[in-house]
Amino acid sequence: MVPKRFRSIKTEIRVLGIDDGRFVPRTKGTVEVVGVVYRGGYWFEGVMRTEITIDGMDATEKLAIMIKNSAYYGEIRVIVLDGVTFAGFNVVDINELSCRVDLPVMSVAREKPDLEEIRSALKNLPDFEKRWQAMLNAGELFEVETRNGENPVYVQTAGFLREDAVKILKRTSTRSNIPEALRVAHIIASGLSPSIEKI
Amino acid sequence: MVPKRFRSIKTEIRVLGIDDGRFVPRTKGTVEVVGVVYRGGYWFEGVMRTEITIDGMDATEKLAIMIKNSAYYGEIRVIVLDGVTFAGFNVVDINELSCRVDLPVMSVAREKPDLEEIRSALKNLPDFEKRWQAMLNAGELFEVETRNGENPVYVQTAGFLREDAVKILKRTSTRSNIPEALRVAHIIASGLSPSIEKI
Repeated sequence: MVPKRFRSIKTEIRVLGIDDGRFVPRTKGTVEVVGVVYRGGYWFEGVMRTEITIDGMDATEKLAIMIKNSAYYGEIRVIVLDGVTFAGFNVVDINELSCRVDLPVMSVAREKPDLEEIRSALKNLPDFEKRWQAMLNAGELFEVETRNGENPVYVQTAGFLREDAVKILKRTSTRSNIPEALRVAHIIASGLSPSIEKI
Repeated sequence: MVPKRFRSIKTEIRVLGIDDGRFVPRTKGTVEVVGVVYRGGYWFEGVMRTEITIDGMDATEKLAIMIKNSAYYGEIRVIVLDGVTFAGFNVVDINELSCRVDLPVMSVAREKPDLEEIRSALKNLPDFEKRWQAMLNAGELFEVETRNGENPVYVQTAGFLREDAVKILKRTSTRSNIPEALRVAHIIASGLSPSIEKI
C-alpha cells in the first residue's frame, strides 16, 4: 500500500490494537484474538474478536475479515499489532493486511525480535518460504522511544510514513510504552482466554 | 454489611464494573459475565469473567467466586453492577455479595427500574419469594446526577454510605453518566458474547 500521509493526527484518533490470547505452544487448535478500539490514548471505544489457528497460515486472512466485519471499521484510522507472529508462528503479512483493509498497519514489539531465531523455528513448519516472506514483507525494524526515559519499542510499518507512525505511537502510549489500545487488547485477550481458564 | 466509610476517595480508586453479555431471553443456557477493573475513571487495569444461568439463581454465588478468585481482588475497593438482575431474572443479592467479598457494592441503572413489572415477571419463575427478597434486599433506590446536565442514574447500595457512593459515581463517570469500569464492561460483554456471534 502507498503510505497514507496524515495531514493532522487528532488526539482522539481511532486506533485498533490487536493481540492474541494464551495457549499451550505446539498444540493443535485455535487461539482467541482480541481487537480493541481506543480513541487516542484515553477512551475505550469497542472490541472485536476472532480465532486463528495455532502455527497456522490464516492470521492475515482472519484479521482482515474481523476488521472489515466490525462495526468500527469506518472509524478506525490505524492498526497496531503486537508483533507479526500470532498464535505461535502464524505470521501476519502486514503489507497484505494493510492493502486488504485499506488502512496503515504497524507492529509493535517490546522485545527486539530475533529474526534468526524466528527463521530457524519457521523451518520446522510447513510453508516455510511463505512464512519467511511474510516476515520480510514487514520491512525494516526501527526503534522508537515512545515515552521519555522508558524502554524503546521495535516497530515495523505498512502504509505509513515513518514520521506519522512515530507521532501516533508517542501520542497514544499514555499509560505504558505501547499504545493504550494494544495494552488493553493484551489484558483482555490474556484475561478472557477460555482455553486456559482459571475459574 | 456495615457500611464502609471511605476516609478519602483516591482519584485512582480501583473500581470493578460488572455486566452480562447478550443472550436470547427465555432460552436455556448460560450467559457470559464480564468484570472490568479500572483505576478511577481513566485507566483500564484488568478483566475477569464467569458464566451464569439464564433466569437461574446462581448470580450472587458466581459473582462472589469470580471476584474472590481474581488476581485483582486485593486491589478492588468498590463493585458496580449494571442493575441487580443479570441473565434475565437471575437476581444478585447485593447485600449478600457485599458480605461475601467484603467490599461495598452498588447497582447502577440508566433507566428507572419498574419494580412492579419485575415483580410480575418474577412470579412466572420458580423461587419467586427468594428472588423478590433479593430485589428488596437491594434497599432504597435513589437518583444521582453523575454529570451536570446529563440524565441521572438510579442507584442501590450495600456496604456504602450514600455520600461515598455518590462521590465515587461522580468521580468515575468520566466518559458517560456511568462509571467507566461499567461502561467498558458492557462493551466487552456485548462485543465478545460468543452465543450471538456476528463473525
